[in-house]
Amino acid sequence: MSPNVPLKQKAIVFYENGGPLTYESIDVPKPKPDEILIHIKYSGVCHTDLHAWKGDWPLPVKLDPYLVGGHEGAGVVVGMGNNVKGWKLGDYAGIKWLNGSCMNCEECELSNESNCPEADLSGYTHDGSFQQYATGLAVQAAHIPKPKEGTEWFGNDQAYLAEVSPILCAGVTVYKALKSSEAKPGQFVAISGAAGGLGSLAVQYAKAMGLVVVGIDGGEGKEELFKKVGGDIFIDFTKEKDVPKKILEVTGGGAHAVINVAVSEFAINQSTQYVRSNGTVVLVGLPANAYCKSNVFDQVVKSYKIVGSYVGNRADTRQALDFFARGLVRSPIKIIGLSELPKVYDEMENGKILGRYVVDTRH
Amino acid sequence: MSPNVPLKQKAIVFYENGGPLTYESIDVPKPKPDEILIHIKYSGVCHTDLHAWKGDWPLPVKLDPYLVGGHEGAGVVVGMGNNVKGWKLGDYAGIKWLNGSCMNCEECELSNESNCPEADLSGYTHDGSFQQYATGLAVQAAHIPKPKEGTEWFGNDQAYLAEVSPILCAGVTVYKALKSSEAKPGQFVAISGAAGGLGSLAVQYAKAMGLVVVGIDGGEGKEELFKKVGGDIFIDFTKEKDVPKKILEVTGGGAHAVINVAVSEFAINQSTQYVRSNGTVVLVGLPANAYCKSNVFDQVVKSYKIVGSYVGNRADTRQALDFFARGLVRSPIKIIGLSELPKVYDEMENGKILGRYVVDTRH
Amino acid sequence: MSPNVPLKQKAIVFYENGGPLTYESIDVPKPKPDEILIHIKYSGVCHTDLHAWKGDWPLPVKLDPYLVGGHEGAGVVVGMGNNVKGWKLGDYAGIKWLNGSCMNCEECELSNESNCPEADLSGYTHDGSFQQYATGLAVQAAHIPKPKEGTEWFGNDQAYLAEVSPILCAGVTVYKALKSSEAKPGQFVAISGAAGGLGSLAVQYAKAMGLVVVGIDGGEGKEELFKKVGGDIFIDFTKEKDVPKKILEVTGGGAHAVINVAVSEFAINQSTQYVRSNGTVVLVGLPANAYCKSNVFDQVVKSYKIVGSYVGNRADTRQALDFFARGLVRSPIKIIGLSELPKVYDEMENGKILGRYVVDTRH
Amino acid sequence: MSPNVPLKQKAIVFYENGGPLTYESIDVPKPKPDEILIHIKYSGVCHTDLHAWKGDWPLPVKLDPYLVGGHEGAGVVVGMGNNVKGWKLGDYAGIKWLNGSCMNCEECELSNESNCPEADLSGYTHDGSFQQYATGLAVQAAHIPKPKEGTEWFGNDQAYLAEVSPILCAGVTVYKALKSSEAKPGQFVAISGAAGGLGSLAVQYAKAMGLVVVGIDGGEGKEELFKKVGGDIFIDFTKEKDVPKKILEVTGGGAHAVINVAVSEFAINQSTQYVRSNGTVVLVGLPANAYCKSNVFDQVVKSYKIVGSYVGNRADTRQALDFFARGLVRSPIKIIGLSELPKVYDEMENGKILGRYVVDTRH
Repeated sequence: MSPNVPLKQKAIVFYENGGPLTYESIDVPKPKPDEILIHIKYSGVCHTDLHAWKGDWPLPVKLDPYLVGGHEGAGVVVGMGNNVKGWKLGDYAGIKWLNGSCMNCEECELSNESNCPEADLSGYTHDGSFQQYATGLAVQAAHIPKPKEGTEWFGNDQAYLAEVSPILCAGVTVYKALKSSEAKPGQFVAISGAAGGLGSLAVQYAKAMGLVVVGIDGGEGKEELFKKVGGDIFIDFTKEKDVPKKILEVTGGGAHAVINVAVSEFAINQSTQYVRSNGTVVLVGLPANAYCKSNVFDQVVKSYKIVGSYVGNRADTRQALDFFARGLVRSPIKIIGLSELPKVYDEMENGKILGRYVVDTRH
Repeated sequence: MSPNVPLKQKAIVFYENGGPLTYESIDVPKPKPDEILIHIKYSGVCHTDLHAWKGDWPLPVKLDPYLVGGHEGAGVVVGMGNNVKGWKLGDYAGIKWLNGSCMNCEECELSNESNCPEADLSGYTHDGSFQQYATGLAVQAAHIPKPKEGTEWFGNDQAYLAEVSPILCAGVTVYKALKSSEAKPGQFVAISGAAGGLGSLAVQYAKAMGLVVVGIDGGEGKEELFKKVGGDIFIDFTKEKDVPKKILEVTGGGAHAVINVAVSEFAINQSTQYVRSNGTVVLVGLPANAYCKSNVFDQVVKSYKIVGSYVGNRADTRQALDFFARGLVRSPIKIIGLSELPKVYDEMENGKILGRYVVDTRH
Repeated sequence: MSPNVPLKQKAIVFYENGGPLTYESIDVPKPKPDEILIHIKYSGVCHTDLHAWKGDWPLPVKLDPYLVGGHEGAGVVVGMGNNVKGWKLGDYAGIKWLNGSCMNCEECELSNESNCPEADLSGYTHDGSFQQYATGLAVQAAHIPKPKEGTEWFGNDQAYLAEVSPILCAGVTVYKALKSSEAKPGQFVAISGAAGGLGSLAVQYAKAMGLVVVGIDGGEGKEELFKKVGGDIFIDFTKEKDVPKKILEVTGGGAHAVINVAVSEFAINQSTQYVRSNGTVVLVGLPANAYCKSNVFDQVVKSYKIVGSYVGNRADTRQALDFFARGLVRSPIKIIGLSELPKVYDEMENGKILGRYVVDTRH
Repeated sequence: MSPNVPLKQKAIVFYENGGPLTYESIDVPKPKPDEILIHIKYSGVCHTDLHAWKGDWPLPVKLDPYLVGGHEGAGVVVGMGNNVKGWKLGDYAGIKWLNGSCMNCEECELSNESNCPEADLSGYTHDGSFQQYATGLAVQAAHIPKPKEGTEWFGNDQAYLAEVSPILCAGVTVYKALKSSEAKPGQFVAISGAAGGLGSLAVQYAKAMGLVVVGIDGGEGKEELFKKVGGDIFIDFTKEKDVPKKILEVTGGGAHAVINVAVSEFAINQSTQYVRSNGTVVLVGLPANAYCKSNVFDQVVKSYKIVGSYVGNRADTRQALDFFARGLVRSPIKIIGLSELPKVYDEMENGKILGRYVVDTRH
């Protein structure tokens, strides 16, 4: 244990779903034999955190004695249990959505730990990253590479830790979706919601993976943003009368893969109309109560796939972080103090949020 | 050209959609430079033949001067064009659904010729196998292996050609669906409609591929039939209150793959509830106007796939025929004369058909 | 901890490489927080155990205070540490070659734990299964299914545990090799050394996986044994003048995959001559100081692969055990008392061994 | 047929292996029913052309009445046979190494036409591209995309056709090798001979595919060239004492894939020492009489693959051309007149050649 770890720390906690989000002093947790203790510097804020607080989902959150949310925390290892292998004090580490799994089931055996029925989730069933010191299972915590020489990150560790935090969930999720699409370098990938938060990350990962990116989004400034992050062909659904027809045209027969980042059932269903024969529609975004509907005759004759993609595993996480550390992906963030987190929840509930908030745990 | 090929032959033809199906004498076709001429001995009858005759589908059939239906024809090579490679007179050959494709598009390049937008279809856009002599593109015609020594087929060529004919479409289709499922030997595959015509072929192919087969079907004698063709676990939907729950139970978490052979939208949608995480739902059967609906949240969290599977390509055809020739798959057939074909269409229209009819072109 | 676990137990130990193998009373080990304690009933004996004792390999074995060899141990869970998940007392469990790994490196992330540079090995760097009570890491220990109803194993637990033990290494290894070959059901797999111990297991797994098996071996009674375990085509290298030519002939162009179980550099190199274009040569057997040599021009033009296959991972282990529990694979064993183990080492060194020995830990 | 096609044309021909290479007037060939006629504008010159002329390989070349070499020809479609689909006059088309195959064997069925035992080869068994008008099988001829708007090629068709010609063999070959490596975006690929002709193309394709490229080569100016085409990490084998150790170090455990472009048996064998566990060594370059030797123990424990990669198929060709047309790959060429071709053969034989020659068929 690093000698500077205090006994008390600041955190945002809640005691019941939908109850007050209080900024208070709580005990610094002690790592179990197989856990590391991370001094969280920054943590991204995700819509899932809002759902956890409100208790929107069937799976109940841990509330004993309270819950600390957050699952995009980046910081420094300051302690660890006796059984921990592969970590040393001073390493950069990340808290991500999956904190642990049974390691015994068929999913875990095949490295699909996120599909484990007994998954332990950061900021949900395990106290997360909206605190200054958080524990994480050593096996699942993310190894964040140090800033690399030759990139602008070198020597800018604070800025690096702030900006890397949303990669731990948002970045890994879109990267995993692109891998699930099985699109190969040189092929067309269409991204619905391409100019949004997840979308602009998806565009950047797709370009780094050698894909030709068709972006679908609508509204002021969207095309400009899409092009700025490297997108190739933009389809504005507010202007284009027949979006599927247009995509079939610009891609010469349909996109080899579609990444449905847009939180829209309409967009999801539309994507089955412009995917190429033998191509793949990837479901990522989660519109409430949405169903994906495909015409059976059409899907058989075109032999396309629809595949659900959840958060990435340890390998996906390492790879997504590596693309970031190499400077190929930027994540536009707004930094505020941890104590201001409740305001972000307000904004999220009112649908007013733009871009990704990252909390600085110092204040 | 074999010297015994006559100038005239018997065939069942029609001149307009839904018009009379007449048994008449027509010219024996001449093979083009890249075609072979097959003396058809037997031909299976498929529901698609009924749809072609009635004109049920958006794509119009060829009607100039008439159409000869049929796409499960087995026979002997008796002639060929000058450019033909890889065939000799006396070979056994099969007419299958796909007769030709552009060979230039992305689908053709990757051996997905059935997904070619310019596919030429036997018994639909090209005269098919309900005649004594049919032409087929040399590249696409099926190479039917001679009966193998050590199997019961050896020396029984007539019976062999009769029984192999439904493999050319029905057999290849279920075999391709099993390949599309990516199920690995030892895994659970569930087959909806397991005791029907396609279903019982699917069960046999699945067993020959090392899979553990869960069959879903309902009614008198179905379980017995399922077990007779080698199935492992039978679920009678007329008796089982909660089919998905039962399958999750017997498979310890869901089937790794589901083959939807049942022509039922309900069965298709139900299959999304008992597929395993990271497993695959395969769409094959084509209920009229059906949609496959999956809950987006569920599909993401379980990361399963839904994939459409159409007819197999040349390699799938060769492999499916090889399983048959090795005696691992039997297809229960009823043989009638070609002249009696209109009665089969009647039965099909009235939904009275049981098992697979095969026409003998001799009478 | 089960109340019946004694403090002392019988084991075969050695204190220095090549030193005496003594049958003595030692302490029963205590499981660490993440370990289970297994009451070993039977343990297979593998050539690797001989190498470990003699110190043949560059990696030194653990010798403090002694080493207990063995890595094919089958028994019952009688205790476990506090952090263990997924096990309960009374479960059947197996000690296998890989006992633990770093769980942090790229190999571990992708479930290739056996390729982890920090692998912990049973009977090598961790006391193994030649004792009555052995500890194993809970995450890596093999879950042995209980005998299944409907198989001959049901109710014969002792015989089952004895015969399952060699599956934990020998069975998993050949099963993994077959998976590494990427051979698909219906394809030809050639197995060199097909009538030996590993070979006859390989033949049975290959058949259960739907493959057509060509066996290569030589000598009295070999063909009979090969056919008895289900092999299809036998090539006796003592009688066949040109083995590659013969295999190219019977397979119509070469085997889609070759599993090199024979411990022979000659056989390995020969296998590159009868593998099919785009096929796979799998290296499994380890002749001392052997090199695999392929003609570069030939390998390029035929585009075949040569792949090394090591022991399986957790998923491979579960699957290989499942094939056994379903009655599809039998392993011919000879049971002797644990105290007689040194005699087996003698036989192995003198090359006199026939079949697989399994020690009964009761005497 | 385009009205401007003459009856006679200029070509370089030879009448016996090693005999005079004469620049003479010969008949313009007539396309067969399934062939197109291409007005060749430019043709790259490959070492294989030298081997064909000298008769170095076991397979004899066609010599009746002469042979026209060349298999990297780019031009314009000016005629076609009656059975041709998918082409129109004025399209850009390319002559590549594989001109035709049986389309009936297992390799052809799976789109591995280059591995067909009856392959028909341009400039070897079929007159090639060292003439002004060449025939090519419509199915196999390369569809060269027109220069794309937004790239520097737009409006520069002559320069484009000249520079695209070496892509038809050299480009496709390295692109296919990269695909055969199964390296994924973000992974390390090592390229031996990275600063040579094939090597610098391989580096550019690898970068366009999102890979991190380690180049191995030696000598003056090589590192500079490697960096200029986008390479990441250069290892100069003339300066680095322990090349494998250095690569293991810079890649953190070995390259995920190695592309052996260097025509050196030593380099090939060395590459087995720095490939990562579960990685892939690709054989492409063809040193005379070379063998690839791997240590069996090492290959098993590290579970790496060695795979031979030959020329690409129709899909690989289309994709490799598309990367070029999108401006992501440049091929440094030297243009000379067709009549000067014999000088290039001289230079090649004397090992004096630098860069890739392209012949202009106008003079």
